[in-house]
Amino acid sequence: MPPITSPHNERLKELRRLARKRGRDESGRFVAEGEDLLAAADEAGWRPVERYCAAGSGLPGTEVEADVLAHVSQLGSGTRALAVYEQRWADAPAGPLCVYLHGIADPGNVGTVLRSALAFGAASVALGPGCADPFGPKAVRASMGAVFQVPLARASGDVAALPGTTIALDAHAGSGPLHGPLGEPATLLIGAERAGLPEALLEACDRTARIPIRSESLNAAMAATIALYEATRGEDAGDHRMSAA
Amino acid sequence: MPPITSPHNERLKELRRLARKRGRDESGRFVAEGEDLLAAADEAGWRPVERYCAAGSGLPGTEVEADVLAHVSQLGSGTRALAVYEQRWADAPAGPLCVYLHGIADPGNVGTVLRSALAFGAASVALGPGCADPFGPKAVRASMGAVFQVPLARASGDVAALPGTTIALDAHAGSGPLHGPLGEPATLLIGAERAGLPEALLEACDRTARIPIRSESLNAAMAATIALYEATRGEDAGDHRMSAA
Repeated sequence: MPPITSPHNERLKELRRLARKRGRDESGRFVAEGEDLLAAADEAGWRPVERYCAAGSGLPGTEVEADVLAHVSQLGSGTRALAVYEQRWADAPAGPLCVYLHGIADPGNVGTVLRSALAFGAASVALGPGCADPFGPKAVRASMGAVFQVPLARASGDVAALPGTTIALDAHAGSGPLHGPLGEPATLLIGAERAGLPEALLEACDRTARIPIRSESLNAAMAATIALYEATRGEDAGDHRMSAA
Repeated sequence: MPPITSPHNERLKELRRLARKRGRDESGRFVAEGEDLLAAADEAGWRPVERYCAAGSGLPGTEVEADVLAHVSQLGSGTRALAVYEQRWADAPAGPLCVYLHGIADPGNVGTVLRSALAFGAASVALGPGCADPFGPKAVRASMGAVFQVPLARASGDVAALPGTTIALDAHAGSGPLHGPLGEPATLLIGAERAGLPEALLEACDRTARIPIRSESLNAAMAATIALYEATRGEDAGDHRMSAA
């Protein structure tokens, strides 16, 4: 089959629709870009609905002329491969360790939280009101493939629907520090950097905990990373004991 | 004085030169954008060399027609204020707690490390070979003002020049976990996500430590954040005990 050479090609138009949340919501699909991400999807057992590659690259998929592919890419000009997948949503947030995000509007932060959730073995990430779409291009990229490995669930903001002990990471000095290992099923609730968690949600949680820092704040992804690290402290990390560096 | 209305204005050309590393290196200056960052600089006692604001904004500084200012901005169209500062470099990395970065080429990661260094009270951040310029626009932005508060030093990669016990965050399973509080002056050494720290540098360090994770890696900023959190565990965080959420 000859490569696609026109940016007006109907199939490429669908790709462009998936760059927007509305397009993703309507189709239930999303796009991952780049060979590393596609390999991560393959490894996690995700079969693409469609796969595209730069003409002449020798990669699998429908060939697209390189300039045209770059034009479709959301993440810069170097992309040689991208693929469309069906979104997967769990019916409900699962334990033993769940991360609930509230109002995390930055897709990079959402993706980074997914990555931390994978690194520290969280069972699921629940996305509450005001969160960026984890299947958006920036979130998928920031997740470095964790989007294909960590179960995702939509959450209404109803604390009763969250698994285990609910622990709100809170900005108030009165809260005690988070102390791991938690030793019980739990959900860690993280709010946006400035707004924090809504008062009603804080009150509905079993307890609050803080991360002791000297400056005013950490961003949500850093907070989630530390909370997950602390929550899983001393647990057996299995065969994949690797450092960060 | 009437607002600057031409994108070809000589002073704006200097701003654009500062967007590039070469321009910053030659002049020893840098640009911070946005009212929050400029307020952080003011609060930290930094006096701008020059200050610009959108015409009619009522902000202090030389007025620039909004469209022209947006054109100069490196960080999107909404910027209403920016300012030029002299870079500040410490003569040497300082303890008691120092973070040394090696080969961290992503400016967002460098800026995020500065932010974590501030959050956990590090005395300085040392930038070794291959690191992004902490005074570049993306690093300054990601630091959320920490660039004005955390002393920065250039480092050659010579471990002997780093303060205290040198602890390499290492990817090898053989290393013991990092255990805080360290209880002694120390430098935490962080390498790039895939490459890690060079072998010679690892060998020159007093010891290595790892962060136990289940997935293959964290990015350098997440690794540094956890290492700083662990290193300062249980220390008195002073008056600013705030959580992350």
